[in-house]
Amino acid sequence: MSNTVSIEKVTTTTFSIFLELIKQLANYEHVEPPDTQAQQRLQKDCLGTHPLFDAYLAYKEETAIGYLIVYYTYSSFLALPTLFIEDIYVKEEHRQQGYGQYLFDFCKQLANKRGCGRMEWNVYTWNAPALDFYEKNHAQRLDKYYYRLDKDQFA
Amino acid sequence: MSNTVSIEKVTTTTFSIFLELIKQLANYEHVEPPDTQAQQRLQKDCLGTHPLFDAYLAYKEETAIGYLIVYYTYSSFLALPTLFIEDIYVKEEHRQQGYGQYLFDFCKQLANKRGCGRMEWNVYTWNAPALDFYEKNHAQRLDKYYYRLDKDQFA
Repeated sequence: MSNTVSIEKVTTTTFSIFLELIKQLANYEHVEPPDTQAQQRLQKDCLGTHPLFDAYLAYKEETAIGYLIVYYTYSSFLALPTLFIEDIYVKEEHRQQGYGQYLFDFCKQLANKRGCGRMEWNVYTWNAPALDFYEKNHAQRLDKYYYRLDKDQFA
Repeated sequence: MSNTVSIEKVTTTTFSIFLELIKQLANYEHVEPPDTQAQQRLQKDCLGTHPLFDAYLAYKEETAIGYLIVYYTYSSFLALPTLFIEDIYVKEEHRQQGYGQYLFDFCKQLANKRGCGRMEWNVYTWNAPALDFYEKNHAQRLDKYYYRLDKDQFA
């Protein structure tokens, strides 16, 4: 990886670039991108006084080419925090050049710094390039199903 | 459900009962229960000045019959917090009496109160009673794989 790559926390100045990349990932994953109200909440939850996640942009020289959202969950059996990767994304035209690996390695550094016992994340079963990537990184695929209840089922 | 059921936050007084139930769940899931050091971390992370999760005990009259650990993750596309259920456990001799449903409904209340967009959790693929339970509750099984990296892979 060339030394022109850098990863920096999202700031008020770079928030709009970050938002653009989130929309691209939503599009790639065939899910609804954040609407106007969601975009406003996202800014508050990212940059307000009580951030709900940590967001980073990856730059190749001066150009933002990807982003990362992580937060910390918890393992009751290890009694240690877990670094959870919510989103890891590299723009289509910048793939296959090691940026994804760079972002993933950055997650490892974060997990190490925070004293985590694990890193965890989930991947759509149809996302073959991502599955390949994580298998190459010797990640363990758990024998677990992932369940969800939507808001209209509890609110 | 009889009106003798109650759910209360774990306190310094009830921590040892909570710990006993965690060990039982670890045993049921065939994973290592927290060792002595982990038990100390768990107490700090549960009851210290910076709690990393929310822990509850369910009581039938005066007897603790189950526990719950939740924390809040985040959906970048919804731009809303997600209630994540880490552990939900009812002692073996108290199952099939509606306590699991009571705990799950309590989670729904928490998610609603916190303004969450979703509730999420994962279940071992071999845990047939749990899978049945969540299917009955109309939970959506996502087409996602769950991945993990252990500490020795990043630290």
